[in-house]
Amino acid sequence: MDLSSFAPLLPEFSAAATAIARDAIVSPLLPFRAATGAEIRLKAENLQPLGSFKIRAGANALASLSGGTTTGVATASAGNFAQGLALAAARRSIPLTVHAPANAPAVKLEAIRRLGAHVVTHPYEEWWRIMMSRDTGCPDGQFIHPVSEPAVMLGNGTISLELARQWERIDAVFIPVGGGGLLSGIALAFRALGLRPRIVACEVETAAPLSSSRRAGKAVAIQRQPSFVDGIGGGSVLEEMWPLLSKVVDEVVVVTLEEIRAAMRMLMRESHLVCEGAGAASVAAALRSGPRAGNTVAVISGGNIDPAVFAEIINEKE
Amino acid sequence: MDLSSFAPLLPEFSAAATAIARDAIVSPLLPFRAATGAEIRLKAENLQPLGSFKIRAGANALASLSGGTTTGVATASAGNFAQGLALAAARRSIPLTVHAPANAPAVKLEAIRRLGAHVVTHPYEEWWRIMMSRDTGCPDGQFIHPVSEPAVMLGNGTISLELARQWERIDAVFIPVGGGGLLSGIALAFRALGLRPRIVACEVETAAPLSSSRRAGKAVAIQRQPSFVDGIGGGSVLEEMWPLLSKVVDEVVVVTLEEIRAAMRMLMRESHLVCEGAGAASVAAALRSGPRAGNTVAVISGGNIDPAVFAEIINEKE
Repeated sequence: MDLSSFAPLLPEFSAAATAIARDAIVSPLLPFRAATGAEIRLKAENLQPLGSFKIRAGANALASLSGGTTTGVATASAGNFAQGLALAAARRSIPLTVHAPANAPAVKLEAIRRLGAHVVTHPYEEWWRIMMSRDTGCPDGQFIHPVSEPAVMLGNGTISLELARQWERIDAVFIPVGGGGLLSGIALAFRALGLRPRIVACEVETAAPLSSSRRAGKAVAIQRQPSFVDGIGGGSVLEEMWPLLSKVVDEVVVVTLEEIRAAMRMLMRESHLVCEGAGAASVAAALRSGPRAGNTVAVISGGNIDPAVFAEIINEKE
Repeated sequence: MDLSSFAPLLPEFSAAATAIARDAIVSPLLPFRAATGAEIRLKAENLQPLGSFKIRAGANALASLSGGTTTGVATASAGNFAQGLALAAARRSIPLTVHAPANAPAVKLEAIRRLGAHVVTHPYEEWWRIMMSRDTGCPDGQFIHPVSEPAVMLGNGTISLELARQWERIDAVFIPVGGGGLLSGIALAFRALGLRPRIVACEVETAAPLSSSRRAGKAVAIQRQPSFVDGIGGGSVLEEMWPLLSKVVDEVVVVTLEEIRAAMRMLMRESHLVCEGAGAASVAAALRSGPRAGNTVAVISGGNIDPAVFAEIINEKE
């Protein structure tokens, strides 16, 4: 599938919004920082059921299934996407098999099982092969890719439809970028609306494959350092996502772990939101860019963080 | 002023909603717990600017000032209400004097000063006298009472107008009760809408003056134990609030500190919200009542809590 040619029209995004209306909330756009002629507001996707934007894509992917779902569906995911899909599948009584890497956090796999899905674990390399090939080796039904799937991007793009109603003039949208499905969905939906806010991809210093790929002019693999920021920062940009990402991203901002921790503290104290590291990366990037970015939306992608880690971060002095 | 005869009509609540539209957000109503035929949803007032519902009252009180505001306005408040009033006053360039008890947290007084208000501190007894008499002893302008003021209750009542749009069938509303201004505003606005959800006042075991007053059939003073729950639980019900509170409250639930701490942990982990103790009291009470309460709204009144205290609570094991 050549995703660079994936140019859905507004009716398809609107249909996605209707399809997920019972699964996802219209997340609030919260005031955060104001200066003359410029403002930062927060699109709080951490308030979604299951704590991240992934419910939008999961619900829309299931709503988009054509007819025969008797054999169920399958996906390859380490966590949030699988949870969103599992919740939406349970509500629709569709059997789901989740293929996960063996090193995925046990607590995430347990949450997926609690939502009623069947979980199969694989060695990381085999899991990655499934992710790339979409071949699970099992007769477990239609495969739903967590990132490069039209239904997934349509679901994520419903964020833009809400934003366009919530704020009449948006100059820039800061979005954490992992696989790129969230960013692509938002960017494409704005284009479908005839709007062109600046699309700023936000990465973390410990793993910034999009930044490296832009310098190289192609999808490249990088060395990644593990950190508490686990929702973004993979080892590479997916080959099939590169044509689209290279087209829709206007700028990449790479923030430090310290900037993310500081943003998380601010969001706790001033906005009373619990954000995971990836979720706060967009806020950290927007704060660094400051008023020159104009009217800015920072998308808080999720809030799933270990309470002990969150406690440690909010206890730190500035 | 006899507030029991205060029965404003819908147009006055609607006018309040218009008056505060630039100061407060329409706070989201978030899904939290679902059972067959019953659900708990969260009215997240902790997401308001300054982290509590108080901005609604502060903004509406200023919007309601009749003409001559050259000498400014004054209030007696230990914290949240004064902050809301200060933010709204700064936006309208109205001078504000805040009379506060000398034992108010320095961090709260500093926040009020940063918002541009003039702060005068008094010994606690003298401050309480000002609160009761509305006589500050200074020529500091029109006095705005933080609780028993029609404009304050009209501002708080805008919550009900939003709720009626956000959920078509509400059986019960759980509301933390301190001075009673939040609860009264919500209850009166529902009546103005022609709706009669069950109004449940939520108190904490360390200080439950409304519960004691209902048993006594009159406003009584109690012994209060200080705790981390500082937004509710005063030493008594205000005499002038008693007639109204005795009329509109259907039930009082007194929750334990441990129930509040458990609710705060749930709200952190599952809803990604930072709530102060008072803010979580309504959620704790709704959880105890369970599905028999029907479709339930728990009003999270605020999220202003010391990060170190919050960190300690979320680190506790169940």
